[in-house]
Amino acid sequence: MSILTLTTDFGLTDHYVGVMKGVILRIAARAQIVDLGHQVNPYEIGEAAFLVAQAYRYFPKKTVHVIVVDPGVGTSRRAIVAEAAGQYFVAPDNGVLGMIYAQEKHKVRVISNDRYFLKPVSRTFHGRDIFAPVGAHLATGVPASRMGKIIVDYLRPASAGPERTGKHAWTGSVLKIDHFGNVVTNFRPSDLSGGKFELVLGPHAVTRLAHNYAECAAGELFAIVGSSGYLEISLAQGSAARILGCAAGAPVELRIS
Amino acid sequence: MSILTLTTDFGLTDHYVGVMKGVILRIAARAQIVDLGHQVNPYEIGEAAFLVAQAYRYFPKKTVHVIVVDPGVGTSRRAIVAEAAGQYFVAPDNGVLGMIYAQEKHKVRVISNDRYFLKPVSRTFHGRDIFAPVGAHLATGVPASRMGKIIVDYLRPASAGPERTGKHAWTGSVLKIDHFGNVVTNFRPSDLSGGKFELVLGPHAVTRLAHNYAECAAGELFAIVGSSGYLEISLAQGSAARILGCAAGAPVELRIS
Amino acid sequence: MSILTLTTDFGLTDHYVGVMKGVILRIAARAQIVDLGHQVNPYEIGEAAFLVAQAYRYFPKKTVHVIVVDPGVGTSRRAIVAEAAGQYFVAPDNGVLGMIYAQEKHKVRVISNDRYFLKPVSRTFHGRDIFAPVGAHLATGVPASRMGKIIVDYLRPASAGPERTGKHAWTGSVLKIDHFGNVVTNFRPSDLSGGKFELVLGPHAVTRLAHNYAECAAGELFAIVGSSGYLEISLAQGSAARILGCAAGAPVELRIS
Repeated sequence: MSILTLTTDFGLTDHYVGVMKGVILRIAARAQIVDLGHQVNPYEIGEAAFLVAQAYRYFPKKTVHVIVVDPGVGTSRRAIVAEAAGQYFVAPDNGVLGMIYAQEKHKVRVISNDRYFLKPVSRTFHGRDIFAPVGAHLATGVPASRMGKIIVDYLRPASAGPERTGKHAWTGSVLKIDHFGNVVTNFRPSDLSGGKFELVLGPHAVTRLAHNYAECAAGELFAIVGSSGYLEISLAQGSAARILGCAAGAPVELRIS
Repeated sequence: MSILTLTTDFGLTDHYVGVMKGVILRIAARAQIVDLGHQVNPYEIGEAAFLVAQAYRYFPKKTVHVIVVDPGVGTSRRAIVAEAAGQYFVAPDNGVLGMIYAQEKHKVRVISNDRYFLKPVSRTFHGRDIFAPVGAHLATGVPASRMGKIIVDYLRPASAGPERTGKHAWTGSVLKIDHFGNVVTNFRPSDLSGGKFELVLGPHAVTRLAHNYAECAAGELFAIVGSSGYLEISLAQGSAARILGCAAGAPVELRIS
Repeated sequence: MSILTLTTDFGLTDHYVGVMKGVILRIAARAQIVDLGHQVNPYEIGEAAFLVAQAYRYFPKKTVHVIVVDPGVGTSRRAIVAEAAGQYFVAPDNGVLGMIYAQEKHKVRVISNDRYFLKPVSRTFHGRDIFAPVGAHLATGVPASRMGKIIVDYLRPASAGPERTGKHAWTGSVLKIDHFGNVVTNFRPSDLSGGKFELVLGPHAVTRLAHNYAECAAGELFAIVGSSGYLEISLAQGSAARILGCAAGAPVELRIS
């Protein structure tokens, strides 16, 4: 029984996710379908990229990840399947697999073999017509090589790492605000060099590195090594993001002294 | 392993959906349960009818669809099981299967055999006590004929198709606003007759038929053949519904010239 | 194929739930995973306790319930597994199993055997590192006794039952506002003694006991025996909570005459 995950910006009020699951189960009746998330903000490719990049490594080999955040549906943007970390990633070629490419050796194929599509293929819902059925066929054991040829000109977004902006200063950014209001930055714990530091977001400077959420006083902002391996800015039992007034993409400056 | 889908207005913050799944799994331990949606607005039978009607055809034969949008729970409204398209639909007899009746040959039975109920049957939660266990028994292979007799006086809502209101004019309505703000009308592409047209919602008139979401300029409203087979009014990477200020049920006028 | 339920305050926008499911499926590939709910308000232990206590009895024997509402993650609070009603409950020792303890004979063990953990164990995400893998191992048949020793000093919240406050008066509280605006109190139908009664919330007094939601006029508040076995205050096709302006925890007075 193989596993297939779904990541979309379809929300939970429409029939779109249910339709994809029906299509999958008609092809792969015994597939175990896992929702990674359907609440990605509409068309926010970077948000979906982060979600999938955080989750895939916890899944077994051969898991098929289907990602449908697809503002270019119906245009000439390609559909692709990437093989990386012993798993499959089925998605539009719009950069949504960028964080996978950055972290893993990978091979990318264009999906061109319409034998695995649901026909007629619409111009508005490739999640149903291309991504779900191709993912389901992969889950039943059809080799990725059947889907199409290897390509090398797939879309790779520019790296999103912090940049050095001074002798002891780097500028990074907010990758994500999570459900608890934790502010996930793109700095790594090793960027702190073990010494004194300041993480600056607008008028706020964070200088404390905590070991758990409960050790700081209420109302105190602190940095912590988040479960994703990035530095996060948090608040004990409160929302750091609300106090900082920031959103994904906001700049964060790191100063080491 | 049989498939059972759930459509309710229970939302995702209460225990109701989890309870139904527990009841199902005690009867049909190997059932594959798929959530079509639990965010139907409370008591909105028409919304649930649309959701199920859009999704069922993508599921395998013998799938059991359990629909619980049930403002009449505890009253004398009947529980029914409909057989259509090789699948089963278990629901209150309140019109929620109306779009299935309109699209498929069907046979409807009243659910009267309390051998398949969870007892004692409450007056407030038939999702748990009747619909889930009956659906689960169907999923294990119990024939629908065991549930009760065929009836012909089940509730059929009036047709919701567009009506002719002038020599070249028809009045239809908005079936649904989707998560992206696409406005799904009840007009079909064939209603356009291939010529010039105007779709009028309040002060707005839409005259362009696009082939995909990306071909129009930002801010331009256009009609498109939606994945559901209806004409939809959309906006490139934006919410048409917000600009049109309309909701499900709003009138839409079609003029052909 | 064993069943594993998840209850968290992680919401549905982050990767946390998906990560837990990946961890579970790597250990228990054939587990049937059921979401009881992920929309528990952040850190609201009592809300999660109610959700699990309402749902567990509908699940089969040997079901493993994993509950992660865990404001003390990373501190010295213990992780526990409780055996009750033939099922398993894996959770932090913060009182979230209090309603299970009150309703069932139970045995509680501290989870100390790190052989079943995902390593390295972080200080911020024990849902991934401890609760999910321990739950998955239980689901594959590892005996609970392998997880750690029986303890008796686990955290038991004070009873939340109504208290007598006068000759014919009791003060209880609101356990939960559900998705429909039904106000679930902690009074039981037997508390009414079958006679005349008043349920008082602020300026509102409810004196009618209805048998189903549909028998009362629009706008009329009534009491009803809810599906959970508690007295609820409801409104025909409307939100009682909105009219009463109350939230979970609000006091409710019962007067019998």
